[in-house]
Amino acid sequence: MITISRKAHFNAAHKLYRPDWTDEKNKQIFGKCSNQNFHGHNYELIVSLTGQVDPETGYVFDMGELKKIIKSEIEDYLDHKNLNLDIKEFSSINPSAENIAILIYNRLIKYFEKSYKLKITLYETPRNFVEYSG
Amino acid sequence: MITISRKAHFNAAHKLYRPDWTDEKNKQIFGKCSNQNFHGHNYELIVSLTGQVDPETGYVFDMGELKKIIKSEIEDYLDHKNLNLDIKEFSSINPSAENIAILIYNRLIKYFEKSYKLKITLYETPRNFVEYSG
Amino acid sequence: MITISRKAHFNAAHKLYRPDWTDEKNKQIFGKCSNQNFHGHNYELIVSLTGQVDPETGYVFDMGELKKIIKSEIEDYLDHKNLNLDIKEFSSINPSAENIAILIYNRLIKYFEKSYKLKITLYETPRNFVEYSG
Amino acid sequence: MITISRKAHFNAAHKLYRPDWTDEKNKQIFGKCSNQNFHGHNYELIVSLTGQVDPETGYVFDMGELKKIIKSEIEDYLDHKNLNLDIKEFSSINPSAENIAILIYNRLIKYFEKSYKLKITLYETPRNFVEYSG
Amino acid sequence: MITISRKAHFNAAHKLYRPDWTDEKNKQIFGKCSNQNFHGHNYELIVSLTGQVDPETGYVFDMGELKKIIKSEIEDYLDHKNLNLDIKEFSSINPSAENIAILIYNRLIKYFEKSYKLKITLYETPRNFVEYSG
Amino acid sequence: MITISRKAHFNAAHKLYRPDWTDEKNKQIFGKCSNQNFHGHNYELIVSLTGQVDPETGYVFDMGELKKIIKSEIEDYLDHKNLNLDIKEFSSINPSAENIAILIYNRLIKYFEKSYKLKITLYETPRNFVEYSG
Repeated sequence: MITISRKAHFNAAHKLYRPDWTDEKNKQIFGKCSNQNFHGHNYELIVSLTGQVDPETGYVFDMGELKKIIKSEIEDYLDHKNLNLDIKEFSSINPSAENIAILIYNRLIKYFEKSYKLKITLYETPRNFVEYSG
Repeated sequence: MITISRKAHFNAAHKLYRPDWTDEKNKQIFGKCSNQNFHGHNYELIVSLTGQVDPETGYVFDMGELKKIIKSEIEDYLDHKNLNLDIKEFSSINPSAENIAILIYNRLIKYFEKSYKLKITLYETPRNFVEYSG
Repeated sequence: MITISRKAHFNAAHKLYRPDWTDEKNKQIFGKCSNQNFHGHNYELIVSLTGQVDPETGYVFDMGELKKIIKSEIEDYLDHKNLNLDIKEFSSINPSAENIAILIYNRLIKYFEKSYKLKITLYETPRNFVEYSG
Repeated sequence: MITISRKAHFNAAHKLYRPDWTDEKNKQIFGKCSNQNFHGHNYELIVSLTGQVDPETGYVFDMGELKKIIKSEIEDYLDHKNLNLDIKEFSSINPSAENIAILIYNRLIKYFEKSYKLKITLYETPRNFVEYSG
Repeated sequence: MITISRKAHFNAAHKLYRPDWTDEKNKQIFGKCSNQNFHGHNYELIVSLTGQVDPETGYVFDMGELKKIIKSEIEDYLDHKNLNLDIKEFSSINPSAENIAILIYNRLIKYFEKSYKLKITLYETPRNFVEYSG
Repeated sequence: MITISRKAHFNAAHKLYRPDWTDEKNKQIFGKCSNQNFHGHNYELIVSLTGQVDPETGYVFDMGELKKIIKSEIEDYLDHKNLNLDIKEFSSINPSAENIAILIYNRLIKYFEKSYKLKITLYETPRNFVEYSG
């Protein structure tokens, strides 16, 4: 088994805020991430696939094909968007880095046969990142 | 003469959009940067000061003091903000990387004696950046 | 289960040297790392926590809280110190990258409930790093 | 158990091409990676070893020794080479990133006692990388 | 005046070799860079343009337009190529980093009005780079 | 004219402290950098040379030769050293980043003919750096 990884990125606005909480509680739990008018990030994404090397090509998975899947399913969907307002999955849950990684995993997993293992690494800032593998 | 530089960063939402233009013209000129609900970036900032080395300390300028000035004048002012809605300087001009760099320069220059030369480098994404020195 | 990570850093002096060995043996085993008057590093630290996402906040653990814990327990304790002379844990063992990672793990693990898994990644230089998870 | 890692790099030319396929099929499967006259990369390599800390030295493995092994077995063998024409292992299989990582693993594993676990991470570009651990 | 910069990259094979010299002299002057069968690099390119900010857009130059020019003039021309065999400008001069930077400058300068100043920064490896501004 | 640059690095211990000042004044001016037992850094160095391209080789200066000069004059002299105790130039002045950059410039300038311009960039940490060109 071998793991291949492809990096991508997208820029988006978001805030962390629960409408069923008071502004004070939002401020207390989410700090400046709850600021009313949103802030934003350059999200850096690493998509990793673990599988066996095809002896004919030397590939675990065609990296060009993987790049296209990430482009159409993730970059086109999230880039230059407001995650709270524009992305339906975040109408009822917060676009925390954790939840964005889970969304990305769920949008990508359908493209790969069950023998592959998928892992998502998402940098929200150069100092904060999350990893999710289902 | 020697130049010292200090890196800092802030996260913010913005969009590029002129209200005196039609949506079509905004789309044509600013592309997806004009999307209505904003997007955002991790802005990476480098503040550079050129001056003479103080023979007593070996410093051009106290790096700890420079760090504090950047914190109070730039990070506290721009971090986790919506540049279009929250920052008064951008009520009438677009928060392009160029204009943000000029704003940062103008907010910092007053802290340094005239013998110093100030330069601002601002990364909007890991692939796009601007430099301004007055 | 999802993993969140936070980066931090500290600068310190150290040397690798066993007083119960001759200088020759120290030189042979530890090379220039045994130089008498110490050398130093910018240590880059990644603290990773694996746990479940809280459905209310979308967080595995509050990143701001994690940042504070790292600040008070690790940065304030190790930054701008001489690891051999100033840090009691290294009075009898060598401050190798491996042993520093174990010290960091042991100082942090008490802050997290048992359901969390903690992992320490420590860069001694951009080219050398260690990982420890208990 | 603790993991230590050492980074290294080498530059090489390669192409992905199967002589038993038509040029059309090579182009269809390998895209521009099959261009006749080769292209090349700065390969960034991370060699990771998992083992127990020696209580006498504080080392899992001597990093200076590991650096020498990587130099003589990998850098001297692959640096400034044409992987297809100069490296015998690639006379019959394609020098894909996956196959290069496997070659590196196989050339290094003999240096370490069975109690160690070896892992190879190989960046073909800053955006594409593979991991292999036997 | 303000400077904007855009990063791009391409992968290529090359060697440094003068056919009018003996192999010995090539080896003496160019070292392993003269190896017969080529080696290669991930070239990282920074294109910088200095000009005045357009008060209407806040732009020195449209970054999306600059990205397209770099794509069509440089990436499509040099990416996945053998610089010695495939690029006509290098039929008679060596594809050293210096000469590649000059070629890039010469291919791009025609796109910008004379009031702009163009600068090329080209990384041949993460440790070696050149800068050229005409 | 074209500029070539080469990166290198060294690790060293230092402190900023004037023996003619009280401990209190040292603490006030130099902060934790004045801690008695030293701290340390991974210094990242960029040496830049500006000159004309030799039409015969395509080189401004032989990068392999430059690497050797940096190795023998700077890395061998400063790596794994205590700058205050082991380096004679710092017996009477403070090893601030500014003064280290000047020392590096002065040790290197003698190797290059007067037609070359030399510039030193020195990172003390990933967030602090200085530039000096005579």
